[in-house]
Amino acid sequence: MSLLVTGSIGIDTVKTPYGVSENCLGGAAVYFSMAASFFSPVRFVGVIGADCPFDLAKVFAGRDVDLAGLEVRAKSKTFRWAGTYHEDMDDRTTDCVELNVLAEAPPAVPEKFRDSKFVFLANTAPKLQLELLGQVNEPVFVAADTMNLWIESYLGDLQKLLKKIDCLVINEDEVRLLAREHNLIKAARKILDMGPKAVIVKKGESGSLLYSSGGEKFLLPAYPADEVKDPTGAGDSFAGGFMGYLAQKGQADFENLKAAVAYGTVTASFTINDFSLKGLQAIKRTDIDKRLEVLRQITRF
Amino acid sequence: MSLLVTGSIGIDTVKTPYGVSENCLGGAAVYFSMAASFFSPVRFVGVIGADCPFDLAKVFAGRDVDLAGLEVRAKSKTFRWAGTYHEDMDDRTTDCVELNVLAEAPPAVPEKFRDSKFVFLANTAPKLQLELLGQVNEPVFVAADTMNLWIESYLGDLQKLLKKIDCLVINEDEVRLLAREHNLIKAARKILDMGPKAVIVKKGESGSLLYSSGGEKFLLPAYPADEVKDPTGAGDSFAGGFMGYLAQKGQADFENLKAAVAYGTVTASFTINDFSLKGLQAIKRTDIDKRLEVLRQITRF
Repeated sequence: MSLLVTGSIGIDTVKTPYGVSENCLGGAAVYFSMAASFFSPVRFVGVIGADCPFDLAKVFAGRDVDLAGLEVRAKSKTFRWAGTYHEDMDDRTTDCVELNVLAEAPPAVPEKFRDSKFVFLANTAPKLQLELLGQVNEPVFVAADTMNLWIESYLGDLQKLLKKIDCLVINEDEVRLLAREHNLIKAARKILDMGPKAVIVKKGESGSLLYSSGGEKFLLPAYPADEVKDPTGAGDSFAGGFMGYLAQKGQADFENLKAAVAYGTVTASFTINDFSLKGLQAIKRTDIDKRLEVLRQITRF
Repeated sequence: MSLLVTGSIGIDTVKTPYGVSENCLGGAAVYFSMAASFFSPVRFVGVIGADCPFDLAKVFAGRDVDLAGLEVRAKSKTFRWAGTYHEDMDDRTTDCVELNVLAEAPPAVPEKFRDSKFVFLANTAPKLQLELLGQVNEPVFVAADTMNLWIESYLGDLQKLLKKIDCLVINEDEVRLLAREHNLIKAARKILDMGPKAVIVKKGESGSLLYSSGGEKFLLPAYPADEVKDPTGAGDSFAGGFMGYLAQKGQADFENLKAAVAYGTVTASFTINDFSLKGLQAIKRTDIDKRLEVLRQITRF
């Protein structure tokens, strides 16, 4: 089934103990689409400025990513982000953020994308996420990401969003902040009380947990990565693998959600193997399937 | 097969956000034995002072724990520990430690325990662990715990110990410290190069990982606990469930090690439900088996 993503396109500068990647392509929608394209065609909605040095058509060449929703604003500048990962690759410092075009009105969802059935709203102001979602006619499964800033300063908007989505994909610290509860299991339940039918808590190298409002649970360790060069985009790649798998299957019952979490996990494990999009660009779907089988085997008892 | 444990018996005072438990029974050998006794008879070796207010025969009444190795030293004082857990129950502050009898010579392994086949050397000075192990004739599977103090200040002794044991059971921070490597997968491999055939890294609420020198891996999330009152003893209860299961099966191939890690995980999940030993005292083996099936079900995809 059709899969739509809305989110950022960025020019990233990333430092890790393994090196520096200056002015490389990044952004949630880019990582998401690259990851999801292993599973399903992707409809891409995002906006850049005239300064963007990347040709997204070339970046996604050979992949089924429809860029009809890519807007280039002649008088705007592209979103930029710079960050440093320290020895503990789960922790990062943001060195610089220039919102630029992301601080303007969101792009429009093209008419031909409005019948999309699976929708991922990557992290941005919840008000914009609502506005973007409002342009999709009858989605069957909507997932969204969010971050500290919106939880702390735009909670009302976020609460409205939570009533309209099926699944929140959120990291460990964010779920605690949003639920005002340290225990992750209790925190996940509180999120479900806010509206979504499912919540996925991403715990970095500690894996993830999936809870449904029906009381179903799924816990999965991260794929054991001994070569982590750049964790940037891991969360968005997870979301891409997750949503791509669901769109491919065309359904989102709990068994499929579980498998989708596993596919998201292994897809993200390739992202962190190298800088920027190189990890995902180096692989084929069969590589993902192979790691999935490894993950299944090393978690079974 | 026979299971021997050597380790501490303590008088603990524990503060958590859920309350205070003053001068309660604790100590690695006590938690271990209580946990292991659900699976296998236990041979107990430990030492207390004349001041110990607990009757261990009563504590273990109805369980197959042989206290022939319990030594009471008339002129010594029992080990005491006081600690506080903060909101993040994975972190604790030690408020007070009185080694007392633990700073003296270790107890002797009784003659009738010397044919023990499965041996757990709970955390103490590696030199004492070696001395205790030297009193066992032909063990088939020896596991040991250790801690920061020994890694930092008695590394030579610890390295000797590592060459004589089959499995090191160690927490996340300790494995990084011992291996001088942040990445847990690389760190685990470095530990295996030091001698043991298997290493188990305990990651608290993030579960555990098991690596073998044969390159086999097993990753298991923690049992999802929404009621954590007192984490004291969780690691020793894990070790107790782990070793108890292996002793019951009488073998320690990788399939059994995996199942043993799962049994250790769920056994520890009961310990943290309540203060001191209450969580373990409240259950039967069937409760452990039920949680094991839940854990199996919520981790399978």
